[in-house]
Amino acid sequence: MVTITIETKKHKEVVDITEEINKFLEKQEKDSGLVFLFALHTTCALTTADLDPGTDLDMLDAFEVIIPKLKYRHPHDPSHVGNHIMSSMIGTFLILPFENKNLVLGTWQRVVLIEFDGPRNRSLKISVI
Amino acid sequence: MVTITIETKKHKEVVDITEEINKFLEKQEKDSGLVFLFALHTTCALTTADLDPGTDLDMLDAFEVIIPKLKYRHPHDPSHVGNHIMSSMIGTFLILPFENKNLVLGTWQRVVLIEFDGPRNRSLKISVI
Amino acid sequence: MVTITIETKKHKEVVDITEEINKFLEKQEKDSGLVFLFALHTTCALTTADLDPGTDLDMLDAFEVIIPKLKYRHPHDPSHVGNHIMSSMIGTFLILPFENKNLVLGTWQRVVLIEFDGPRNRSLKISVI
Repeated sequence: MVTITIETKKHKEVVDITEEINKFLEKQEKDSGLVFLFALHTTCALTTADLDPGTDLDMLDAFEVIIPKLKYRHPHDPSHVGNHIMSSMIGTFLILPFENKNLVLGTWQRVVLIEFDGPRNRSLKISVI
Repeated sequence: MVTITIETKKHKEVVDITEEINKFLEKQEKDSGLVFLFALHTTCALTTADLDPGTDLDMLDAFEVIIPKLKYRHPHDPSHVGNHIMSSMIGTFLILPFENKNLVLGTWQRVVLIEFDGPRNRSLKISVI
Repeated sequence: MVTITIETKKHKEVVDITEEINKFLEKQEKDSGLVFLFALHTTCALTTADLDPGTDLDMLDAFEVIIPKLKYRHPHDPSHVGNHIMSSMIGTFLILPFENKNLVLGTWQRVVLIEFDGPRNRSLKISVI
């Protein structure tokens, strides 16, 4: 199990991490199989996404509207609650297929880390299954 | 890693793919373990669901309301953005347990592909872990 | 593949199951690797979450608002539909990393079962990959 670090640059951001994972796969012994990713955080998420120009900002706008603006209890900072909820709803892990030391994805499909409370260094556990 | 194709029939649809996966498992050497599924697409999703009659349409109605109707940037077709977002939120992969070459599911639990932009042929990578 | 049972106490509840999984891992041969969890149900979900005091109730409040209140078709009990939808959106499985027979999680990260229709005994399939 290796830890890789993704440096996010903005408060909210969809970061394309596809090439980061491919770089990891190039160094592995196995040519094909499954790769596991896990974010050690509660205010970011991992998923796959279309990243046509502007779609990253579209997603963030939509998430902003989806999260209800309620009187939250969370003691640390009640305005964080929406970020925690999006992280729990989208999820913090991925399993992806690879062949020839490269991710197997759809034509428009990218692997993304969604930052809900950056900028930050995000630690991801990664391993080949 | 094998690719199976699911032919969806409608623009939006919840397709029960449980038996498709069981057919794949029947042909495998291993009797029990875990099976991995991954959709090579950005406008469909994979998950488990209750499929009591009408619940598929209930889910689609709910998703339609959940996605905010904003002025999206996506250059290709801004009306697609909601479909991409639901795919990213629900997720495009599954890991499921199987025993005796059959999926182990709850009484009411089915494996579904949620089509957000059909009808289409959807390609799923599938492999036993 | 082992089945563990989580007894939920309330109608809606976020249950911290981190220690339940660690107890399972302590009894395994492997010291490190990945652990798979799968809920055999359609009205609960598995994910990771921040559990600062009150955040569990914040999450449940937010989910209540996110689910549209529509005229659902579901024959059994239309008021259940929202619970099924949250289960399908959040997901019913997890893969988590472990080292030294303990889950590897972020500082604030816990493993949770979200109960949408309790109190109930919830069966989870669990196995080391």
